[in-house]
Amino acid sequence: MANTKKRPKIDKKNLIIRRMSTYLRTLDHLQNKGVKVISSADLEKIDGVTQSLVRRDFAEFGSFGVRGVGYHVPELREQIARILGSDRHWKVALIGAGGLGSVLMHSASFKKRNLEVVQIFDHAGASVGTSIEGIPVHDIANLEQELDASRIDLAIIAVPPPEVQGVIDRLSQLGVRGALYFASRPVRVPENMVVLNMDITVELGVLTYQLLES
Amino acid sequence: MANTKKRPKIDKKNLIIRRMSTYLRTLDHLQNKGVKVISSADLEKIDGVTQSLVRRDFAEFGSFGVRGVGYHVPELREQIARILGSDRHWKVALIGAGGLGSVLMHSASFKKRNLEVVQIFDHAGASVGTSIEGIPVHDIANLEQELDASRIDLAIIAVPPPEVQGVIDRLSQLGVRGALYFASRPVRVPENMVVLNMDITVELGVLTYQLLES
Repeated sequence: MANTKKRPKIDKKNLIIRRMSTYLRTLDHLQNKGVKVISSADLEKIDGVTQSLVRRDFAEFGSFGVRGVGYHVPELREQIARILGSDRHWKVALIGAGGLGSVLMHSASFKKRNLEVVQIFDHAGASVGTSIEGIPVHDIANLEQELDASRIDLAIIAVPPPEVQGVIDRLSQLGVRGALYFASRPVRVPENMVVLNMDITVELGVLTYQLLES
Repeated sequence: MANTKKRPKIDKKNLIIRRMSTYLRTLDHLQNKGVKVISSADLEKIDGVTQSLVRRDFAEFGSFGVRGVGYHVPELREQIARILGSDRHWKVALIGAGGLGSVLMHSASFKKRNLEVVQIFDHAGASVGTSIEGIPVHDIANLEQELDASRIDLAIIAVPPPEVQGVIDRLSQLGVRGALYFASRPVRVPENMVVLNMDITVELGVLTYQLLES
């Protein structure tokens, strides 16, 4: 990224996208509860953002809702899902099938965002050779031979922290374009990839700060 | 929060705190690798924020670093840890000791932020009556009798999604001031609590968006 002047704009867009993704999970929840219509005031109460911010976020992507009525939940849900790509089908390679990988495989999260795990890799000696929910587990050592990059849209990386960078670099070589990892460390992101991180230590730092301040 | 005009400022502060917490985990990593001094240009490369933003974030909390030299890693690490409260000792109740709770108990994340799990609660029939890493597991049904609120600084909630709100409300009644939960749903946050959420479906929505755009 040569043009550093563009970064603040990209950061702002990232924040909008993260809020849109938060509204989507809230709409999932409301739809499951049978709620048909909501207002931006409701979203303010539920997601802790101001009404005007909700409206500005939506305005980035077009015209949602009906003035004086609010938003139809299923319609708004569908519009945001389309923006985020959650209406498409995403094929996933799960790298690391230990404790965390196994928790993820058995949660409803992937299904909610239309992700399907189609390949699983783990370390020899662990689950390799067995299968999880009908998907055979390959040896990470054979990633280059076994990973079918033409079928894989993104990878979920749940290997021990010291191995994350190596896995990302190998996925990049194989042409996998996206990954999410959970280790508490920064990584060098290859130019041909989008890599996101969920790090509980970052969240714990925010929580303890807010407890000191409150 | 009656004064809604204050919210944007609070949001901005939250973003700064989240970045500070990200710098802290990066400094942990650099310190482990034996790195002694870094510049804001290094932090730009590692954490994907601009140098000027790094400097502005630090300026919110005082004067760090030496002009023309950069930041001494152990010193900067300590300063940020103090700001976030990660230099203090935090006593934790883990609510839910199933797959995710067990992964969390065995990860290094709590230790990194000076959190010590001192009480564990789970559903009868699961691990109740046993102990995990030497800590006896109590029945969630007996939360009111068994939770020692005077000792507990915060709770980590790893129960099934439909139970999260109930647990938060009960913790609030008991006087527990902070919690982090992982379910993919919004909650009503009691006024006497700080509640944070890590939701993989939100992150997956951001990832698929960025893959469509890239």
